[in-house]
Amino acid sequence: MKEFNLEQYLPHLSIDCVIFGYEGKELKILISKSKFGDNLWALPGGYIKKTESIDNAASRILFERTDLKNIYLEQFRVFGSETRIIQSSFNETMRAGYRQYDSNRFTDEVISWLTDRFVCIGYYALVDIQKVTTQTGEFDELLEWRNIHDLPVMMHDHNDIVLEALTALRLNLDSKLIGFNLLPEVFTMREIQELYEAVYERSFAINNFQKKILDLKVLERLEKKFTGAQNKAPYLYRFAK
Amino acid sequence: MKEFNLEQYLPHLSIDCVIFGYEGKELKILISKSKFGDNLWALPGGYIKKTESIDNAASRILFERTDLKNIYLEQFRVFGSETRIIQSSFNETMRAGYRQYDSNRFTDEVISWLTDRFVCIGYYALVDIQKVTTQTGEFDELLEWRNIHDLPVMMHDHNDIVLEALTALRLNLDSKLIGFNLLPEVFTMREIQELYEAVYERSFAINNFQKKILDLKVLERLEKKFTGAQNKAPYLYRFAK
Repeated sequence: MKEFNLEQYLPHLSIDCVIFGYEGKELKILISKSKFGDNLWALPGGYIKKTESIDNAASRILFERTDLKNIYLEQFRVFGSETRIIQSSFNETMRAGYRQYDSNRFTDEVISWLTDRFVCIGYYALVDIQKVTTQTGEFDELLEWRNIHDLPVMMHDHNDIVLEALTALRLNLDSKLIGFNLLPEVFTMREIQELYEAVYERSFAINNFQKKILDLKVLERLEKKFTGAQNKAPYLYRFAK
Repeated sequence: MKEFNLEQYLPHLSIDCVIFGYEGKELKILISKSKFGDNLWALPGGYIKKTESIDNAASRILFERTDLKNIYLEQFRVFGSETRIIQSSFNETMRAGYRQYDSNRFTDEVISWLTDRFVCIGYYALVDIQKVTTQTGEFDELLEWRNIHDLPVMMHDHNDIVLEALTALRLNLDSKLIGFNLLPEVFTMREIQELYEAVYERSFAINNFQKKILDLKVLERLEKKFTGAQNKAPYLYRFAK
């Protein structure tokens, strides 16, 4: 394999993505098991090409793992401690993993570059899990959807990055609704309430919730859902165009 | 003057600060007239030392210009277009300015570094203008407080950075109130309303506003303000400890 081309990337700057998906009433994120260490987990991430914007780099990194384009993606925080990566307990494992993997691709210079200080731009994305076709990137052994309450200890500060992403997702969730890719095309009031309950990890009173959501004036009411019992069937909604 | 020490900084990564102050019912920001070009204005900014966190770099850059420590400071957005700086119409002016200024300090290598692509982390700060002692940094000819509606065209994307900072400041202003350094120690309800009106650029109905602010339960009511007419004097408030 040919050498990892350092020259094409900005040094010291990385992107990590918290990819939220919603399935079976659970809020999940996509995590990566690294090729470069045993039981080493991480957020899907990557570097920024000198020729691409940071937003395009994040979209590319996301596309490489999910095969999806045009996903709702938002920068939420920069992680820039002076000890990031260089004082991480995972750093030595990673160096050893790179060395063992392919010495043509990961030369000493490349390994130094990869394990030097990095300032990480955190992005979160919202996807419909059904539409995702996961595919491993260069650094992934495998990718896996995990409930946000069932995450392994991940490398460096990646668990903290998830918590910050969740805080950012919760902040003004209402105003992000339309950008969401978390719900199917049409959904019931109950389904949108379940989504809110999964994101905020609490229950909402049904009447108050319905009023609050309808007051946002972003939903369009369609026909009733076919259930066989027309009088009790719930209405279907979609986001107004 | 000795050479600008490139080795101490992370390349391609800068910080720009939107320093909001509030005075005479006006929301203002501190801007810098650059040494390196005629009528060239910019946000106060700088670079990140390899030995400091990004938050500490921002605090240092702010301290260097205002002589203030422990200021409310928040990252709000990263500006990372692939053409930032390198395709800026101000880039040639700046190169010429550096060249002319001091060729010992700004060698060709330093000038290339300074005018290469930069990803900029935007921070905003909230300060009490009365407490600020402005002092010029290495890149500033002078610093000036300007009403946010009376800003010159600034270099690169700095005017856009101000707009984004204002959007971030407005988002959840209520929850940022306590962190504020914008108001004096004690203030009247009218003063806090005037601050809100300056930030949001609109008026608020006095009764609704008072109820909304008191409902936040962050204020402590003190004695009445001494005005000579005790019966009409407004109450003073401060943030509850």
